[in-house]
Amino acid sequence: MYSFNNDYSEGAHPKILEAMTRTNLVQNGGYGLDEHCTRAREIIRQETGSKDADVHFIVGGTQTNLITIATALRPWQAVICVAQGHINVHETGAIEATGHKVLAMPGKEGKLTPDEIIQAFEYHTDEHMVQPKMVYISNSTEIGTQYSKAELEALHRLCREKELYLFLDGARLGSALTSTVNDLSVKDIAALTDVFYIGGTKAGALFGEALVITHPDLKPDFRFMMKQRGALLAKGWLLGIQFEELFTDGLYYELASHANDMADILREGIRNMGYTFFSPSFTNQLFPIFPESVINTLQKEFIFSIQEKEEDRSVIRLVTSWATRQEECEHFLSVLKTCSM
Amino acid sequence: MYSFNNDYSEGAHPKILEAMTRTNLVQNGGYGLDEHCTRAREIIRQETGSKDADVHFIVGGTQTNLITIATALRPWQAVICVAQGHINVHETGAIEATGHKVLAMPGKEGKLTPDEIIQAFEYHTDEHMVQPKMVYISNSTEIGTQYSKAELEALHRLCREKELYLFLDGARLGSALTSTVNDLSVKDIAALTDVFYIGGTKAGALFGEALVITHPDLKPDFRFMMKQRGALLAKGWLLGIQFEELFTDGLYYELASHANDMADILREGIRNMGYTFFSPSFTNQLFPIFPESVINTLQKEFIFSIQEKEEDRSVIRLVTSWATRQEECEHFLSVLKTCSM
Amino acid sequence: MYSFNNDYSEGAHPKILEAMTRTNLVQNGGYGLDEHCTRAREIIRQETGSKDADVHFIVGGTQTNLITIATALRPWQAVICVAQGHINVHETGAIEATGHKVLAMPGKEGKLTPDEIIQAFEYHTDEHMVQPKMVYISNSTEIGTQYSKAELEALHRLCREKELYLFLDGARLGSALTSTVNDLSVKDIAALTDVFYIGGTKAGALFGEALVITHPDLKPDFRFMMKQRGALLAKGWLLGIQFEELFTDGLYYELASHANDMADILREGIRNMGYTFFSPSFTNQLFPIFPESVINTLQKEFIFSIQEKEEDRSVIRLVTSWATRQEECEHFLSVLKTCSM
Amino acid sequence: MYSFNNDYSEGAHPKILEAMTRTNLVQNGGYGLDEHCTRAREIIRQETGSKDADVHFIVGGTQTNLITIATALRPWQAVICVAQGHINVHETGAIEATGHKVLAMPGKEGKLTPDEIIQAFEYHTDEHMVQPKMVYISNSTEIGTQYSKAELEALHRLCREKELYLFLDGARLGSALTSTVNDLSVKDIAALTDVFYIGGTKAGALFGEALVITHPDLKPDFRFMMKQRGALLAKGWLLGIQFEELFTDGLYYELASHANDMADILREGIRNMGYTFFSPSFTNQLFPIFPESVINTLQKEFIFSIQEKEEDRSVIRLVTSWATRQEECEHFLSVLKTCSM
Repeated sequence: MYSFNNDYSEGAHPKILEAMTRTNLVQNGGYGLDEHCTRAREIIRQETGSKDADVHFIVGGTQTNLITIATALRPWQAVICVAQGHINVHETGAIEATGHKVLAMPGKEGKLTPDEIIQAFEYHTDEHMVQPKMVYISNSTEIGTQYSKAELEALHRLCREKELYLFLDGARLGSALTSTVNDLSVKDIAALTDVFYIGGTKAGALFGEALVITHPDLKPDFRFMMKQRGALLAKGWLLGIQFEELFTDGLYYELASHANDMADILREGIRNMGYTFFSPSFTNQLFPIFPESVINTLQKEFIFSIQEKEEDRSVIRLVTSWATRQEECEHFLSVLKTCSM
Repeated sequence: MYSFNNDYSEGAHPKILEAMTRTNLVQNGGYGLDEHCTRAREIIRQETGSKDADVHFIVGGTQTNLITIATALRPWQAVICVAQGHINVHETGAIEATGHKVLAMPGKEGKLTPDEIIQAFEYHTDEHMVQPKMVYISNSTEIGTQYSKAELEALHRLCREKELYLFLDGARLGSALTSTVNDLSVKDIAALTDVFYIGGTKAGALFGEALVITHPDLKPDFRFMMKQRGALLAKGWLLGIQFEELFTDGLYYELASHANDMADILREGIRNMGYTFFSPSFTNQLFPIFPESVINTLQKEFIFSIQEKEEDRSVIRLVTSWATRQEECEHFLSVLKTCSM
Repeated sequence: MYSFNNDYSEGAHPKILEAMTRTNLVQNGGYGLDEHCTRAREIIRQETGSKDADVHFIVGGTQTNLITIATALRPWQAVICVAQGHINVHETGAIEATGHKVLAMPGKEGKLTPDEIIQAFEYHTDEHMVQPKMVYISNSTEIGTQYSKAELEALHRLCREKELYLFLDGARLGSALTSTVNDLSVKDIAALTDVFYIGGTKAGALFGEALVITHPDLKPDFRFMMKQRGALLAKGWLLGIQFEELFTDGLYYELASHANDMADILREGIRNMGYTFFSPSFTNQLFPIFPESVINTLQKEFIFSIQEKEEDRSVIRLVTSWATRQEECEHFLSVLKTCSM
Repeated sequence: MYSFNNDYSEGAHPKILEAMTRTNLVQNGGYGLDEHCTRAREIIRQETGSKDADVHFIVGGTQTNLITIATALRPWQAVICVAQGHINVHETGAIEATGHKVLAMPGKEGKLTPDEIIQAFEYHTDEHMVQPKMVYISNSTEIGTQYSKAELEALHRLCREKELYLFLDGARLGSALTSTVNDLSVKDIAALTDVFYIGGTKAGALFGEALVITHPDLKPDFRFMMKQRGALLAKGWLLGIQFEELFTDGLYYELASHANDMADILREGIRNMGYTFFSPSFTNQLFPIFPESVINTLQKEFIFSIQEKEEDRSVIRLVTSWATRQEECEHFLSVLKTCSM
């Protein structure tokens, strides 16, 4: 069985394990106050063109989301996102557990539109309702789509005007930035948001997300909040080392490109056989629609999840990663071909 | 200017103020441990046919909702309600502030359907998502509609089957129970829910809601939670006195009937002039749809809120109460008539 | 049985009930946005000499404490108080339930000293510990003592220097301000704190605390927080009316003086019989130390609480109020006298 | 500069890195539902003699503490610990941030005594105060001391009697279990507590704590809470692999013994030069008391923390680990010797 179930089924790119092994017995200060983290922070500031940014390394995405949002919001404030937003559905109420309402809007192809933000903003008129104060988007989105530069600029302008913080969840940022339809650079991302993160877990690291805070309001005392929520890793340099490796010689983009290339093979093959997709994804998550019989056949050799079950056909989710093997993509297509005959 | 803005624009029924004045200098124990509360609890147990119920008196509805829900749920559990649910919209995120997600479903005429509960329940499959554990409904609802006995029985059965607590917000229970289309008794309400409350604030009291807990899981240590959330009123007997008065000689139902009678006058008058309504309400909240010009004229003499603004007409909300004067209802209709000519 | 158990055993001063009765059927806007509250706010601004203060009316003390503290603090911040502080012991963890640690210091005669604040402040050095940001004191204190002007000035100076908010719980402020040893005015209180409240519940109102916010950081969006925690009373004018009455013609001080006068009678009588006190109180709470046998005799005719049980003697708490009858104080002393013979 | 600053200054025992490298490209299921975790759970159940225990792997100690405590307690309940307890001082209010009060008692040599638990339990008498429901202890403690079997049995009996959950923080359990004065086995620990954890971070793992839940009340839905607090590691097998290695061939105990051996060298050397200690530790944390001049000299070559500053001498903290080199301990003593001449 080969798994297209997610992009965190394997460990880390070998360079990362090698760097960990090489430095294993060197003593380091704890909790991210070490030379590796210092260097990784500097590299990321340069890479993102945001020399005054605060950069923090956090083990996982849910932690990063909940800490960032709970730091940004006062108790009566809320965050706007799309209904499929990871924080709205797949974090077991982590945001609400910090005391904040998530205001979910339908979205369009998984993306939040300026109109929806205005609608949410204007609906909440007084102290009997929560006060929207942050916008959360994911790039790439939960259904594989991605924001264009024009779209992100429009969100940015609107958020500035309404005094809303714009937070971009970049758990799969690499895949978005290296897709064939992308027109955003990581510098654009930094310039057009108030805080965002560069996902490592799904991009070749063992674990780790690099949070980049550019808005001055969100910087003070951030490490207090990290510690309180259990997110100051004792051996914090393990995070620093991984981001040093990822952002040396473009490894991060190289790995993300590989994931996209593998998805391209799958997508084109599937499309050529006449199947359609739930969403127009050019990133490492694909959502083809297959009849039950086809799914049953595929499940004999591949692991993947069912996104939406309909009567006699379903949307499945196929995820590629830095570690996905091309021959397995090709094998998937050949199995699919047998179903289609 | 006469106000149809809400059902809490006046003080209390005179009998209540008289009882408070009569007992004013008698010493009482604090925090609801006094003879008035004891007697009021007993009266309510009899009235609701639930002799083993725990009865607590709380100053306001938001407090009652947040304390009840936060007591019932474990940290990862969520409450299902309709999108218009008071807890979802008009409590400034009070439930989320206790750490719990509100799962809002569209509803039908302001009422939650069994199908929607099943849908919400089945959507949440594992530990990556919140766990639905309570259903919150209002009777009458936020848009004036009300549950029939058959509807409440269906919800009750489903909740039992799925091990969901059923919580009924009765801020306007009196109006529901005395409406012309009602087929539920307060004993039915007690038998078909796990916890519910009888609203006093909108029904002739100065303030106060009587919470009736019938499910044994929800009873232990409830007063700890009340105290922690600031809901143990020091002079708790003030709550006891009010419910003693309301449930002596049927005052509660009499006052609610008056509110409904006034709403009936308004509704029939408005309908006869050819206007339609946003929802089919037979309780003390009406939602007629008027052109802007009509609304402008009415606003010169009456206070009411705009529920939903559309292009050239809007839904307004008219609320009657135990204190509403019949001549003001008639005057409203006469002003409306001038608009319609 | 006559109760010296607390200062909230009776209803309200008759003027308050009369005012409520007089205005009972006048329509008012909800949630504190009415003319009575507006007028009461203005009266309190003048009384406290703080013309720019925000004034809010809240039903009870625990609500007032938790809302004020949770509004002032960011998630990782803590509040310093004495070990006996109401928020530390007698609010069922209400402050912790909003997410904040209470840093309890021993105190001296129930009062927090500058040295203790410095100690707590300096102990918390980095992001592995909470960040002290507020100081909470009560005046009069939980054991009946009170701050002198010099003491409050010293706390004020220190808090300014350390950028700590200074919050004064004035549930029993009237008793402190009218005691024979007081040298503080309510204007001093306003000038030397960042936020404080004037207690009504224990001072002749049915219920209600008037919160006075002078520090600009603590003002924005305060009503959002009140609503979220269930503290926007629907019929908010009931609070406004009470404070209008209390601060017309000095009723508030008159009632507090009466309570102190009654305590003076008790204190002097007890002292003259040779008993000692747990704390040097000149306010309406006395803590005499009696042998068990004396306590047993007193308990046959009077209700009071045991503060601290020791081997063969205990500290009891006697509380007088605006409603305490002089003849009952004298009767208490005469019963005590029989024990002592 | 050599660091005795903590026991998490180096990476992991080489066997752990080798196992990670060996399995790096094998696909695994996410979130701890993989074969390594399954096997590690089984090994730990056998090792601890608790075949029905639920075992969860969590990245760090603060996360483990806050999740365990917040799962065990209802909103109004509190946890008892010693004043120095990690949860009371060094987790930035993580427990309070979940809504619960920490009831800190003085302790004796860093250990909680049955008398203190009784005192805390009896002090909290009604719904105006929090309800103690859990006892938190650390073994070894924050100041290097450890519980004897008799002491743990006494705590266990008392907790059973009072219906308090007993939770043991085993961040440094290995050091306690292998110290020369220990008389407890890990099976005893499991039998005498309701939930405890075996620390990996400070015992040769890169990171990770193995939580062992034996009390049935604490088991249901635990993974929901883990997910909500961001503690379900995507590549969860990394935790499983580490505990597989640690509990194969006794590596865990071997590494802990080494840390203790190194501490023994330091302790005996320091003692022989006539210095005294703040606490009687036989584990890997030592708290010698040195004059300032000695500390200044030592700081030129070694990194360590100052535990308590006094006038002209201070308590310092020296921590050894699985990776501590014997020659550095000897060098420390030789430098110390030069100071003492």
